[in-house]
Amino acid sequence: MIIEYDGTAFAGWQLQPVERTVQGEIEKALQTILQEEIRVTGAGRTDAGAHARGQVAHFDTAQSPNGINWTKALNSILPEDVVVREVAEVESNFNARFAAKSRTYQYRIHLGPIALWRNYCWPVFHDLDFSLLESCAALLQGQQEFSAFCSEEERDKREAIIFEAGWKKEGNFLYFDVTASRFLRGMVRMLVGSMVEVARGFLSLEEFQKLLQNPEGKKGGPLVPPSGLFLMRVEY
Amino acid sequence: MIIEYDGTAFAGWQLQPVERTVQGEIEKALQTILQEEIRVTGAGRTDAGAHARGQVAHFDTAQSPNGINWTKALNSILPEDVVVREVAEVESNFNARFAAKSRTYQYRIHLGPIALWRNYCWPVFHDLDFSLLESCAALLQGQQEFSAFCSEEERDKREAIIFEAGWKKEGNFLYFDVTASRFLRGMVRMLVGSMVEVARGFLSLEEFQKLLQNPEGKKGGPLVPPSGLFLMRVEY
Repeated sequence: MIIEYDGTAFAGWQLQPVERTVQGEIEKALQTILQEEIRVTGAGRTDAGAHARGQVAHFDTAQSPNGINWTKALNSILPEDVVVREVAEVESNFNARFAAKSRTYQYRIHLGPIALWRNYCWPVFHDLDFSLLESCAALLQGQQEFSAFCSEEERDKREAIIFEAGWKKEGNFLYFDVTASRFLRGMVRMLVGSMVEVARGFLSLEEFQKLLQNPEGKKGGPLVPPSGLFLMRVEY
Repeated sequence: MIIEYDGTAFAGWQLQPVERTVQGEIEKALQTILQEEIRVTGAGRTDAGAHARGQVAHFDTAQSPNGINWTKALNSILPEDVVVREVAEVESNFNARFAAKSRTYQYRIHLGPIALWRNYCWPVFHDLDFSLLESCAALLQGQQEFSAFCSEEERDKREAIIFEAGWKKEGNFLYFDVTASRFLRGMVRMLVGSMVEVARGFLSLEEFQKLLQNPEGKKGGPLVPPSGLFLMRVEY
């Protein structure tokens, strides 16, 4: 399944015992259709408040999936902030999480106050030097070390490679696009936080580079709001 | 003042005794700053659920407006779904409503289901013939007769001229841009409703033309949802 969701009213992708999650809503919808217990595996566990244009998830069922218009059936049951864009039958050993070769996230900044689309960006009220954002992104290319840009509990499993990273500007919006083999918890939001610190003159490019190459226990950040974060697509 | 707002949680622009309105929020914010009763006049009375990128409004005060950073002061008081983008002192006889030469609205359609940005468009689930939308818009150019495209109570004061009207397509979004001397209540939403009826083959282009030229009491429509409607700018 390729899934789009507005994360504003969700406690993230991953199933929680009480709070409303995207995984939970999709499992409920599938159970309504198939009348059996279904577990869904997503390619990326997006944070509370973060969005997805192209999350990918799979589920297993012993029943024949034929004869059902899956997108129509699911979208008629799902709440309005989740839309299943595509459904296809795959090899039984396909795993949406472990078969993924890379994920692409986008982070959206709006320069100045904003009322429309405010849940889909982070409004920034400082002057930002765009060329410094570009210089930061250039340093991320090929980056494999993220101990300054992950939560404490993930310190041991931080193998990740950034394949592509870049900023673009459209009107008052700034977009950071990043493709990596995988993403650690908080990684995009902390990287954006540090890059914005550089672009507003609070951190030097050299200090940013040091956070990447030899952080010596220092942390990047701050962790910028999840409203600007979009899981755009997953590549297999 | 040039004002942007997300109309989703508003009962429209115009002040209501009980319900939450944009005019009401702005008057409250101005009264907090100026400590006097303020009445605000807007260029266009947008519907409940409709949005604005560039609503224009004016107010009178006997106090000196100098020494106040107006946008900062107002935005710090206003709720997050209203943003004042610009404030300037004008001639004392300026009237945001009556001095307006034209207004430009945009109506946004999304082809197929959508979770993100769903409050900022109208999702349409039928196939639409884009060239028929374009043919409809061409018929609107210079149009001055809207008795099929307004509410009953406005039948007598329907002088309005469409200066420009056109559709554009970007991915799965369709945008209808229209500039007119003024807009009658429901006019854009009923015009879009009729054009979509043409584009899905439920109304012929000739029937649409007849609604414009000689409606004989027939009404256009249906009235499409306000979520797709944006007051983009007002020209003076």
